[in-house]
Amino acid sequence: MDIYGILQNVRTEKPLVHHLTNWVTIYDCANIVKVFGAAPVMAHAVEEVEDMASLASALVLNIGTLTPEFIESMKKAAKSANKKGIPVTLDVCGAGATKLRDEKCFELLDNTKIGIIKGNASEVARIAGEKVRTKGVDSSEVKKDLVELAKNLATKMNATVVITGKEDIIADKDKHFIVKNGCDMMTHVVGTGCMAASVIGAFSAVEKDLAKASAAGLSCYEIAAELACKDSAGPGTFKERLFDNVYNLDKEKIEKLKRIE
Amino acid sequence: MDIYGILQNVRTEKPLVHHLTNWVTIYDCANIVKVFGAAPVMAHAVEEVEDMASLASALVLNIGTLTPEFIESMKKAAKSANKKGIPVTLDVCGAGATKLRDEKCFELLDNTKIGIIKGNASEVARIAGEKVRTKGVDSSEVKKDLVELAKNLATKMNATVVITGKEDIIADKDKHFIVKNGCDMMTHVVGTGCMAASVIGAFSAVEKDLAKASAAGLSCYEIAAELACKDSAGPGTFKERLFDNVYNLDKEKIEKLKRIE
Amino acid sequence: MDIYGILQNVRTEKPLVHHLTNWVTIYDCANIVKVFGAAPVMAHAVEEVEDMASLASALVLNIGTLTPEFIESMKKAAKSANKKGIPVTLDVCGAGATKLRDEKCFELLDNTKIGIIKGNASEVARIAGEKVRTKGVDSSEVKKDLVELAKNLATKMNATVVITGKEDIIADKDKHFIVKNGCDMMTHVVGTGCMAASVIGAFSAVEKDLAKASAAGLSCYEIAAELACKDSAGPGTFKERLFDNVYNLDKEKIEKLKRIE
Repeated sequence: MDIYGILQNVRTEKPLVHHLTNWVTIYDCANIVKVFGAAPVMAHAVEEVEDMASLASALVLNIGTLTPEFIESMKKAAKSANKKGIPVTLDVCGAGATKLRDEKCFELLDNTKIGIIKGNASEVARIAGEKVRTKGVDSSEVKKDLVELAKNLATKMNATVVITGKEDIIADKDKHFIVKNGCDMMTHVVGTGCMAASVIGAFSAVEKDLAKASAAGLSCYEIAAELACKDSAGPGTFKERLFDNVYNLDKEKIEKLKRIE
Repeated sequence: MDIYGILQNVRTEKPLVHHLTNWVTIYDCANIVKVFGAAPVMAHAVEEVEDMASLASALVLNIGTLTPEFIESMKKAAKSANKKGIPVTLDVCGAGATKLRDEKCFELLDNTKIGIIKGNASEVARIAGEKVRTKGVDSSEVKKDLVELAKNLATKMNATVVITGKEDIIADKDKHFIVKNGCDMMTHVVGTGCMAASVIGAFSAVEKDLAKASAAGLSCYEIAAELACKDSAGPGTFKERLFDNVYNLDKEKIEKLKRIE
Repeated sequence: MDIYGILQNVRTEKPLVHHLTNWVTIYDCANIVKVFGAAPVMAHAVEEVEDMASLASALVLNIGTLTPEFIESMKKAAKSANKKGIPVTLDVCGAGATKLRDEKCFELLDNTKIGIIKGNASEVARIAGEKVRTKGVDSSEVKKDLVELAKNLATKMNATVVITGKEDIIADKDKHFIVKNGCDMMTHVVGTGCMAASVIGAFSAVEKDLAKASAAGLSCYEIAAELACKDSAGPGTFKERLFDNVYNLDKEKIEKLKRIE
């Protein structure tokens, strides 16, 4: 896969990536998309989401701080995106933690066409119908063969499924990738998971094969994270340098550091 | 213009700057005001905006993540500000992107007295009645003579008009300034435009000539940005050092680096 | 008091700390909790706050950008926390600034069991029934003997009262602590006050004596701030290094630097 080529397409096409996301990491989601060279826009009013999605090249939904009203806006935006034929990424953030989250995830999946379903192991397991209780939004104690779980869900939903973790699994019905980049510091700072979904969204805007787009986006993002880890004194400097390293990512670094199967 | 003198007034008077702004960059807007030495307050409940605006020395409105309900709060806050006689800055963030944004900008402009209208070229052109489509919130492909456009709009609205870009144009009906400071890195990180409006708001609290206030505020902000660019490895370090450099801004740096006409 | 011991309990137990907080510093509140080793979760929908609070080990409420609807969610979350027996920390952010803030603080205090009431001097004075007008959320021109004020309020409310400032006062009906760590730079950046409440929340999850928990949490947080101040060029680098220093805090640093009475 030409990871660098897809990155360059993001940088030259500068796609507009429309987000309806949570209020905690909304800045980081916008900023990572910007630093990757794309154009983020955050707009959630039910009165304008259709218009905004129709201007965009990709849509990212993240239910981190959902309300029922916000989900209505998400549905409208997703239907507009579906109509235009642009890919929709759904971060099932916190699925399994409360009844509301589960119900609303399924409502989105049932009523709109989601191109990429993204979460950590326990969140995606929940969406796949496994009974797993999520503690907060970070745990991942799922024993199951996650590749199989991802493939089955991908087939069932006719979507690409992304399970993030120490190793990320990206599967559609025909194939799967495993991205092994990243570093432990990513788990010590808030927002790295949400940003991953936004990066996937940006890459999905320029690469029609959504599994490829997801794998390329995660590879770039996590290579930058590895580079940021190296000279960081802790999560504060890591976070700052993550943005620097995404911005300065080049072909040589990607070729040297990529670990993808 | 005594740019440093106006900055010092911000630092000594520490004016309370009330914001109703977007949820993406709300932290940055508050923080830049704080780092400049003023006191930010963010309060949007329709039940308290009149009270809060009546305590403040300036009001900043930014429609980046507007909803109709939020605009109602903005109108109440602006009317309270108008009654008290404190200046209102409106960042017409994303004007031209959707019908809702256009309608609500005009609703604010028609129903309240806005002292400073601020946006990029395409956003301000839209407010001035030009037909320009905004791609996200960053584009600026407007051919028109922007100074003339700003002056005409300023005269029509009896306001100060600020068009930000590589060179910023600040105009009222009688005069205009062009601020040439700033650096390219400002366009690679989310929030620099929103922070510009907040800085203008803080300076408007201590300088009655709103064009002067805007020009002085933008000069200081962009001189700090230039200094931050110099030793930055990318948008992450740039953003962090922007706050450091605003905090450490002094007369010598301003006199040496200012580029204003 | 074994400050380091309590910190280690946070790090090993990794308690889930549920927040309903303001939209300005919500990222910082989540991140400081994470960097301390606990697990933040931000969820405010009235439909899920009971469920989420029932999963958590502590609840933090901050009224910085309150609305009446948001307060309803807070009440539901607090009642769920009360039922489960987990401690609730209330940051009375901006109390005294508007009628809405005062009313809603008292509504929360009257209808739920708040374990820790936290604010700056003027905010807490307001809650204690003193007539003090808050300018923004930072001022602290209260002459009264603050220790006595804290003790009286603590006794009246059967709660722990925390007054933050150059020296922090932590009181319950039987005892009080004074934490003298911290640095001036904390007052030049937005979010340090809100983060203090979140830190207290995280520590309250692992230490039943809420005054001890508050004092230990503030000590750790402010020792990290002192260390961050030392090599900072301004508020930007300070903020970043605050997170690094919290993450790297160890027994030796705490024992050497703690200043608590």
